[in-house]
Amino acid sequence: MGLQHYADLESCLSVAVDAAKRAGQIIANNFNTAKVIEHKGMVDLVTETDKACEDLIFKLLKSTFPSHELIGEETSAENGTPLLTDAPTWIVDPLDGTTNFVHRFPFVCVSIGLVVNKVPVVGVVYNPILKELFTAVQGKGAYLNGKLIHASSQDKIGNSILATEVGTTRDKQTVDRTTNCINNLLFQVRSVRLSGSCAMNLCGVACGRLDMFYETGFGGPWDVAGGALIVQEAGGLIFDPSGKDFDLMSRRIGASNGHLKQPLVTALTSYV
Amino acid sequence: MGLQHYADLESCLSVAVDAAKRAGQIIANNFNTAKVIEHKGMVDLVTETDKACEDLIFKLLKSTFPSHELIGEETSAENGTPLLTDAPTWIVDPLDGTTNFVHRFPFVCVSIGLVVNKVPVVGVVYNPILKELFTAVQGKGAYLNGKLIHASSQDKIGNSILATEVGTTRDKQTVDRTTNCINNLLFQVRSVRLSGSCAMNLCGVACGRLDMFYETGFGGPWDVAGGALIVQEAGGLIFDPSGKDFDLMSRRIGASNGHLKQPLVTALTSYV
Repeated sequence: MGLQHYADLESCLSVAVDAAKRAGQIIANNFNTAKVIEHKGMVDLVTETDKACEDLIFKLLKSTFPSHELIGEETSAENGTPLLTDAPTWIVDPLDGTTNFVHRFPFVCVSIGLVVNKVPVVGVVYNPILKELFTAVQGKGAYLNGKLIHASSQDKIGNSILATEVGTTRDKQTVDRTTNCINNLLFQVRSVRLSGSCAMNLCGVACGRLDMFYETGFGGPWDVAGGALIVQEAGGLIFDPSGKDFDLMSRRIGASNGHLKQPLVTALTSYV
Repeated sequence: MGLQHYADLESCLSVAVDAAKRAGQIIANNFNTAKVIEHKGMVDLVTETDKACEDLIFKLLKSTFPSHELIGEETSAENGTPLLTDAPTWIVDPLDGTTNFVHRFPFVCVSIGLVVNKVPVVGVVYNPILKELFTAVQGKGAYLNGKLIHASSQDKIGNSILATEVGTTRDKQTVDRTTNCINNLLFQVRSVRLSGSCAMNLCGVACGRLDMFYETGFGGPWDVAGGALIVQEAGGLIFDPSGKDFDLMSRRIGASNGHLKQPLVTALTSYV
């Protein structure tokens, strides 16, 4: 595919950054206005901005890389999630943290990942409100606004900050499992954060402001395709919350710095 | 006391803003460095920055208002919390969100409130990382970076975002009550946020990015003295989570926009 070459991946990164910044400008422009909201589920929202951002990003990626596949949250919501093949595939969440966006809570971002042979090779996450641009290319490290970042060095789970989310499912079994798991974790970690954006949580692990993150049952691969590579390139670990290998299409993710995978997996046993 | 005059309160606000910005500069300067941490409790932290900020704020307030009383988080940690009298009293949290500060999670702030006859009359909350300055003077409205703010107009609890915190107490009874309460709320609200700063949560209600907030068992009046007035001046409500009147010294607070107090109090019944 030619994408194994460093120069090619750098070009892909450059286009993805351009797309993320342009979409981010739309998000920023609409951040403080009242939103027209549609419901995908009882508490799962979508706005015109989500759709406008996906349109913009898809047009730019299609025109630059006509042979590449595209998977996006909003297109998938309408047509179903395409199968992931070995072809170069852009996986896009045009607005991660839509509920935050609707409420003007500043953890919102654009997430774009490029996957080749089912492996993430380029990741971009851009928060246009906090003006944080996270980027990574396979084998080349992870960056925040152009500055190299590293996952934290914390090796004691008792001194760690863990992020998770309560998700958009509200049946009793799911909610009970979520809060029972948080209850158990509160006896082991320093504190827990819920901030409403899966991709921002991954970037939080990548830059060390969080030590661990897990979530199950989120929307799809678009929530994690960009951020997973950013964590790995920052020296962090990505895995299934059970401890098994990460599966991009499984809607399950665990993330930690280089030390806390096993303590997290152990703490999550019987909950995920 | 003379403080009932508008001009006097505006002077007090101006000095408090100056103090908050100077302390905020210390926080920002030290945000990305490794911290020397002391433990007040198992997961309750204090850093040199907390102390340096309180010193700076106290010196400025003492020299400008020599007759006023001062209550600060760090001074109270050493000497016990003074009784609140009817005298003009500055109540200061030099760094709210110390755990966030240690981990570089961007919800940190300086909180300064002036209380006269036990009633908050000036409030300043400054987040030097997000560069958000929230201010209020009794009867004069609430502002974010000089722009008038309002609590949200949401009147359906099912469409609301609620913030709370897990606190720093980790006995089984407290943790169970915390997660049982969150469990119950998840069936009633759109989503829940835990972001690690009581004063920022209050300001979130004031500017409408959160619809409701409650917390019990936090450190002391310094966590809420600034933010409570900012909520009220933004058209929101401050109350005890039981629905009774707010008591600044009780380490218990409920906050909502103008509509959701009763639904929140009802949802919290038997948990707080």
